[in-house]
Amino acid sequence: MARDKKKKPVRPRALPPKGFRDYFGAEVAERNAMLNEIAEVYHRYGFDALESSAVETVEALGSFLPDVERPNAGVFAWQDEDDAWMALRYDLTAPLARVYAQHRNDLPTPYRRYAMGPVWRNEKPGPGRYRQFYQCDADTVGAASVAADAEICAMLSDTLEAVGIERGDYIVRVNNRKVLNGVLENLFGSVISNTDEDKELSEDYNRIMSDNILRTVDKFDKVGEQGVRELLSGGRKDASGAFIEGLGLSNDQANIVISFLKSKGSSSSETFNNLRKVVGNSGIGLEGINELETISDLLTAGGYGPDRIEIDPSVVRGLGYYTGPVYEAELTFEILDAKGRKRQFGSVAGGGRYDDLVKRFTGQEVPATGVSIGVDRLLAALREKGRISSQAKGPVVVTVMDRDRMGDYQKMVTELRNAGIRAEVYLGNPKNFGNQLKYADKRESPVAVIEGGNEKDAGVVQIKDLALGARLSAEIETAEEWKAQPAQIEIKRSDLVAEVRKMIARAEGLD
Amino acid sequence: MARDKKKKPVRPRALPPKGFRDYFGAEVAERNAMLNEIAEVYHRYGFDALESSAVETVEALGSFLPDVERPNAGVFAWQDEDDAWMALRYDLTAPLARVYAQHRNDLPTPYRRYAMGPVWRNEKPGPGRYRQFYQCDADTVGAASVAADAEICAMLSDTLEAVGIERGDYIVRVNNRKVLNGVLENLFGSVISNTDEDKELSEDYNRIMSDNILRTVDKFDKVGEQGVRELLSGGRKDASGAFIEGLGLSNDQANIVISFLKSKGSSSSETFNNLRKVVGNSGIGLEGINELETISDLLTAGGYGPDRIEIDPSVVRGLGYYTGPVYEAELTFEILDAKGRKRQFGSVAGGGRYDDLVKRFTGQEVPATGVSIGVDRLLAALREKGRISSQAKGPVVVTVMDRDRMGDYQKMVTELRNAGIRAEVYLGNPKNFGNQLKYADKRESPVAVIEGGNEKDAGVVQIKDLALGARLSAEIETAEEWKAQPAQIEIKRSDLVAEVRKMIARAEGLD
Repeated sequence: MARDKKKKPVRPRALPPKGFRDYFGAEVAERNAMLNEIAEVYHRYGFDALESSAVETVEALGSFLPDVERPNAGVFAWQDEDDAWMALRYDLTAPLARVYAQHRNDLPTPYRRYAMGPVWRNEKPGPGRYRQFYQCDADTVGAASVAADAEICAMLSDTLEAVGIERGDYIVRVNNRKVLNGVLENLFGSVISNTDEDKELSEDYNRIMSDNILRTVDKFDKVGEQGVRELLSGGRKDASGAFIEGLGLSNDQANIVISFLKSKGSSSSETFNNLRKVVGNSGIGLEGINELETISDLLTAGGYGPDRIEIDPSVVRGLGYYTGPVYEAELTFEILDAKGRKRQFGSVAGGGRYDDLVKRFTGQEVPATGVSIGVDRLLAALREKGRISSQAKGPVVVTVMDRDRMGDYQKMVTELRNAGIRAEVYLGNPKNFGNQLKYADKRESPVAVIEGGNEKDAGVVQIKDLALGARLSAEIETAEEWKAQPAQIEIKRSDLVAEVRKMIARAEGLD
Repeated sequence: MARDKKKKPVRPRALPPKGFRDYFGAEVAERNAMLNEIAEVYHRYGFDALESSAVETVEALGSFLPDVERPNAGVFAWQDEDDAWMALRYDLTAPLARVYAQHRNDLPTPYRRYAMGPVWRNEKPGPGRYRQFYQCDADTVGAASVAADAEICAMLSDTLEAVGIERGDYIVRVNNRKVLNGVLENLFGSVISNTDEDKELSEDYNRIMSDNILRTVDKFDKVGEQGVRELLSGGRKDASGAFIEGLGLSNDQANIVISFLKSKGSSSSETFNNLRKVVGNSGIGLEGINELETISDLLTAGGYGPDRIEIDPSVVRGLGYYTGPVYEAELTFEILDAKGRKRQFGSVAGGGRYDDLVKRFTGQEVPATGVSIGVDRLLAALREKGRISSQAKGPVVVTVMDRDRMGDYQKMVTELRNAGIRAEVYLGNPKNFGNQLKYADKRESPVAVIEGGNEKDAGVVQIKDLALGARLSAEIETAEEWKAQPAQIEIKRSDLVAEVRKMIARAEGLD
């Protein structure tokens, strides 16, 4: 009669899926406070919020490979009841493309929009690498003018200062993909032959070489000048001893690329002069330099000097992806890394111009430029600088000495809350008073309020400075000292709000 | 050679999946502003934020039926690379259960938490029914005392007032499932026989009858007193003429149930007296009444009178789901429905006590009570009452008369922004000035700034009141009148910020 036996149900594991996590209390409040500050700056710049759906069709995301049964890796995807594939967004740009294509007749052109929210990646999680994380993007769609790029750089600078990164602790760096294209044109321009077949061959060659050179300069941050030089020419032995084939450029050719990466002068006009030398007669290169000059002029007119934003051709991150100006915000103060060594905090935001935003949907090229702020990185930087406003302080805990007098305690918390003080009454089993104080500790409560029957009759309450109490209990060694400590005082019941406020202020002074 | 032909790629449709939508500009800002205000009240009450992952294992959500291949309907679910099922959360309570079970040793007990964010339902979408929508919950876990329920009712009242619902425009109503249980015990107590077999039979009968009665009283709002009476006794013909079988209660029995639903008196003590009559000697019923009395006393002590929170046994929504106190916030002002008829705005929040929160995970019963605010409903109510702060005003648009002087225009927007005024420079193609003004209209811009070469030379700019302009162009009939209108004025360039601020203030006065 096994069927009649009731099977003990298997209990589910109380865990989120692998690579996902939860955020508690202050973590949530601090991130929201920072995002609110960022949104305020974006709003002042005329950017409008957009909150697109978290779920997109796989065809809109563009991640569907026609000859595999499932969407390719990287996204969380599933089929709905009509067998259509849906997926969680993996960034905020792909949804922007879909939204702009869908609503382009109703949206203003140019369309400035910002978006903040979680995105999901179906990737192998690792330490500090989660499969759900926040992005915070601002993009201008439909503006071909580099004034749009300059504006985003200025906005990025204002944003960093608004959230609490002081001027001098950050720099926004600007470069232009077109200048590198000019360098490449300068390098390979002479290879082009007159016959059509030769031309096609050499174009293929140039394209492949260009891609390889792009990939190589992207390693500038990692391998430095000498490393890039070796990778461009004869090859390089890496740290493990393995030999990496070089691209076979001549010394002169490699020098031109290196000169581009090192062309930052002590002023922007010097930088532009240096850049003119490395692009030669290349039309695209000169266009790129002109764009950088325009950006520089606009920023100067707006009062954004090189202490905040500078032209820097060594910015290579994203040069392969973007089509025009690229920009990056770096925090320049030092922190200690995991091994205790000093290093610069590094990049917290980056972006640039890309011109194929909605082409997949409409066939039209629509210019766009935008920035993405690394939400977790910037939050970490603010914590590092002590710039997180500690709005997430623990509440005053009104303890329960006499469970029949919950109404009295309720009245106290109401008074405190009405005065804007975070406060709660203890709602657990009040039998064990020690548990109530342990609870208050766990809540990081600054003050506990105590009113027993005697106090009630005398019209007084005890208030206990828990911050000071914790400090004293670490320092005080004898019972006599303990008794003499001023962490607990008796006050008139009618002075509750005023005295609690005083004690909280004192506790904050101790921090 | 079909294989060599390049297929023209099929363009993806620019649409979100069925039942999903996007939120633009003011919609996003208004919801965030409201949620921030709510979070502030919750925080003051000692509640901590929790943002759990959007994705849960299906086993943690508890929606997996072991003998079907896919999770049951209602959730969006998929298998990851290890074949484990994951799903998007369908509410904020199931994740709270998982989080509390997972972290119960680190979290304070009682644990007060609030959560705000999107949830997803794999249901057939309809008009106004989306498959992604916001929830906003506050729950207290681990507090058996009804002081926790009273606290949430007080918090709900404070929350409604904080977001802009005035006292008198809402009422929080409180009832208790235990009182209904007492009514049922009173009804069926006499059926119980002495033999074990009889007892088991009558218990089965009572359980089924209780469930049916619960379902019937849940229809009180819809079918009214007479309808409930018919459904409890002989049966009822519905609007379509179909006959619905009754439960077969005697007239006396039906009267007791109806008396419960109508037991609200002109004061709470009158209500409690009425309730005592309908529960008779039922232990659970008297316990329920005592709990309501405690809640009433605590709220009175906190200053929350019946103008804000009242005991009302006709609150039946959720009586079947919850195990103790239930509460509901109703907005009492009138609106016009789709057919132009006056009706009360109705419910915007509801909740109650449930005691099996983490039992699935740990085997332990943990008491919990909590409220969920209908985010979209409350937002709609605030719009109805004109309580939405219009922080999402359009920006001042600085037009581009001379594209070589972008620096001058850039300087203007910077000045305006630094003065806290939302402002942008026109970033589209500036050739057609009419397009710039059309753009400003689309942006709901209050003011356009115009500086051509002549103005520049004379040290002046034109500022155009677009709000007034729109009004005038609707009212003015002749060209002479049009010329005489004061919508566009010339000001000194150095007065830009002050004059724009004045014009915006005037435009706001016009609204």
